[in-house]
Amino acid sequence: MRIDILSVVPELLESPLNHSIIKRAREKKIVEIYIHNIRNWSKDKYRKVDDYPFGGEAGMVLMIQPVFDCIRELMAQRNYDEIIYTSPDAPVFNQQMANELSLKENIMILCGHYKGIDQRIRDNLITREISIGDYVLTGGELPACIMTDAIVRLIPGAMSDESSALSDSFQDNLLAPPVYTRPAEFNGWGVPEVLLSGNHAKIREWQEQQAYERTRLLRPDLLEE
Amino acid sequence: MRIDILSVVPELLESPLNHSIIKRAREKKIVEIYIHNIRNWSKDKYRKVDDYPFGGEAGMVLMIQPVFDCIRELMAQRNYDEIIYTSPDAPVFNQQMANELSLKENIMILCGHYKGIDQRIRDNLITREISIGDYVLTGGELPACIMTDAIVRLIPGAMSDESSALSDSFQDNLLAPPVYTRPAEFNGWGVPEVLLSGNHAKIREWQEQQAYERTRLLRPDLLEE
Repeated sequence: MRIDILSVVPELLESPLNHSIIKRAREKKIVEIYIHNIRNWSKDKYRKVDDYPFGGEAGMVLMIQPVFDCIRELMAQRNYDEIIYTSPDAPVFNQQMANELSLKENIMILCGHYKGIDQRIRDNLITREISIGDYVLTGGELPACIMTDAIVRLIPGAMSDESSALSDSFQDNLLAPPVYTRPAEFNGWGVPEVLLSGNHAKIREWQEQQAYERTRLLRPDLLEE
Repeated sequence: MRIDILSVVPELLESPLNHSIIKRAREKKIVEIYIHNIRNWSKDKYRKVDDYPFGGEAGMVLMIQPVFDCIRELMAQRNYDEIIYTSPDAPVFNQQMANELSLKENIMILCGHYKGIDQRIRDNLITREISIGDYVLTGGELPACIMTDAIVRLIPGAMSDESSALSDSFQDNLLAPPVYTRPAEFNGWGVPEVLLSGNHAKIREWQEQQAYERTRLLRPDLLEE
């Protein structure tokens, strides 16, 4: 899989894309990630990429030309399954989307910035808009990292123990059950007896019941889906 | 405001917390951010912080002792308004939570990692659990950055133009209207006439109508709240 990320603050993407599971997946060539600085496509001598919005609102807008030229150049090199724009006013990312996107070959992610991007980019070049949640951030760089992380860890070979991903929250519309590790007692706090019993059928039953109870209590909406 | 972030992969937090608005807010002393490597509190000679889960599930669990000692040490130094744990099985972060947290004095964010943390930490030390969305990530580091970004940009003085934050998506339960910037025509694509009219009353009316229409189309759930 190949992921191209387009940003006006590419430095911000560095540490999240070069550690932990993403780093190992890149080293193993399970995923190729390329970061593109939109300023490199600016025709302005100061590499300007933003301008005032028509209509006189507060904030700046990411200009159409540098983004258009960057996307067109990449599109000329290969076929992209999706050209994604990260924006709060879009359908909200979830585990099903991550599963689906992890099966693609080439995806491009354009990071929003400033007050937003010129709407003509969204109307004419973007194939899919995704928000990571109902909150406003400085830019789409962290959302691009979030999506990349959620997607890459699902690609076979990315995680050292793949069965771990299958028991994560959301894969079965249930939150994960609580986990405990040694020591069995710490500061007077014990762990549920059943987990120390060695009875795997009983442990599995307890975990399923806990997962269901936690979901019912914290996220009943997931049970209705 | 002071934010303490506890992590087992502190390197991952570096670039997001040292660029753009967060960087400027730190330089202006609007926010102090401290990153703590949980391994520094490990009593193991290899600085181990994870162990196998009781009950024999796949994946590793963040141990109680290093986290307990780190949190207790920080709590002895100052009062924390919230000790937050980032986890997918928790109430979902939104703009109202960001507004509320931006008014706090000291918050601690414990980044989840591996299969999760020992449940006794959650039961006894954490005051608030927050998810950033219904998807599973490698760890809580990116969610901690997301929350920090959403919170810090709301603190007075963090943004160069504060009126810009007020017109962002979600602050009034509406998605933001589309934005356009120069040139007025690009590749045969124009901008809505009204934005070029100079008639501010009409422009405002168009923006409000667009914001409402986009919300109705893309996120009708926001209108019901």
